[in-house]
Amino acid sequence: MRILGIDPGYATIGFGLVTSERAQVHMETYGAITTPAGLPLSRRLYQIGVDMEDLIGQLKPDVIAVEELFFNTNITTGIAVAHGRGVILYAAEHCGIPLYEYTPSQVKLAVTGYGKAEKRQVMDMTKRLLKLKAVPRPDDAADALALALCHARSATSRLPHSSTVRETI
Amino acid sequence: MRILGIDPGYATIGFGLVTSERAQVHMETYGAITTPAGLPLSRRLYQIGVDMEDLIGQLKPDVIAVEELFFNTNITTGIAVAHGRGVILYAAEHCGIPLYEYTPSQVKLAVTGYGKAEKRQVMDMTKRLLKLKAVPRPDDAADALALALCHARSATSRLPHSSTVRETI
Repeated sequence: MRILGIDPGYATIGFGLVTSERAQVHMETYGAITTPAGLPLSRRLYQIGVDMEDLIGQLKPDVIAVEELFFNTNITTGIAVAHGRGVILYAAEHCGIPLYEYTPSQVKLAVTGYGKAEKRQVMDMTKRLLKLKAVPRPDDAADALALALCHARSATSRLPHSSTVRETI
Repeated sequence: MRILGIDPGYATIGFGLVTSERAQVHMETYGAITTPAGLPLSRRLYQIGVDMEDLIGQLKPDVIAVEELFFNTNITTGIAVAHGRGVILYAAEHCGIPLYEYTPSQVKLAVTGYGKAEKRQVMDMTKRLLKLKAVPRPDDAADALALALCHARSATSRLPHSSTVRETI
């Protein structure tokens, strides 16, 4: 199964693709879509839509895992991120890819085993579990890989603990 | 000039088309795009994108006027509306239609002459200025017509007070 994790935004949108087979998760690629700061929001949103559909076309994911939004800080930034996230969800639906949403706590729990883990711990565990040489850059790409990993581990953990069943995934 | 006003949302998106010629503004059509409450947000956003592009294709506006978002009440609703607004801006850009954004105060000022007017006053003035028999329903459509009217009056007021110049619009 090819899982594309997406860390939503309007300036930088992190992405990370993993393949998950028989409880083995492998990192395929990661990176970020960025939009120029000087453009009006509507032009940036249009670019996000075009780039997301290109990315989905190239990476051919079976599912997309995207972070849910929580705001306890800057409402203005939050509103702009929600505009970007709207276009990301639209693009996923337009391409017919099933979408899964995870809260930051769910990602932390799935990756580190602790729902209140620090960001650094999540990044270190993402690096370790995906057997990477370093924590991916930018942070948005590392967050996106953690989301993909979260989906891979959540999907696996729903199955009974039997290797026979696991092999039928 | 054909001006399409849009009152953004995710459950109900009001629209209203006016034509503006030589300082005369005429109502062409109005209504609302609605999405079913039972669908996941991503499916509703997809429907909004498809319906917005259909609407633009049918109504062939020269410009789109859309309301800016302000939140001082329910943040959860605000975040969902921002998702919808993101897709609306994306659709306008995708169709290559110039976008103008107005705050609620700008709409009130342009339509009633008073930036802190009550919603009821804005609706009554919209009805009067467009020579309608009744205030349009739903409210979202009336709001969208007020936005279109705001753009028509703002565009006119930027010109010098000379009928010769006005006739070159």
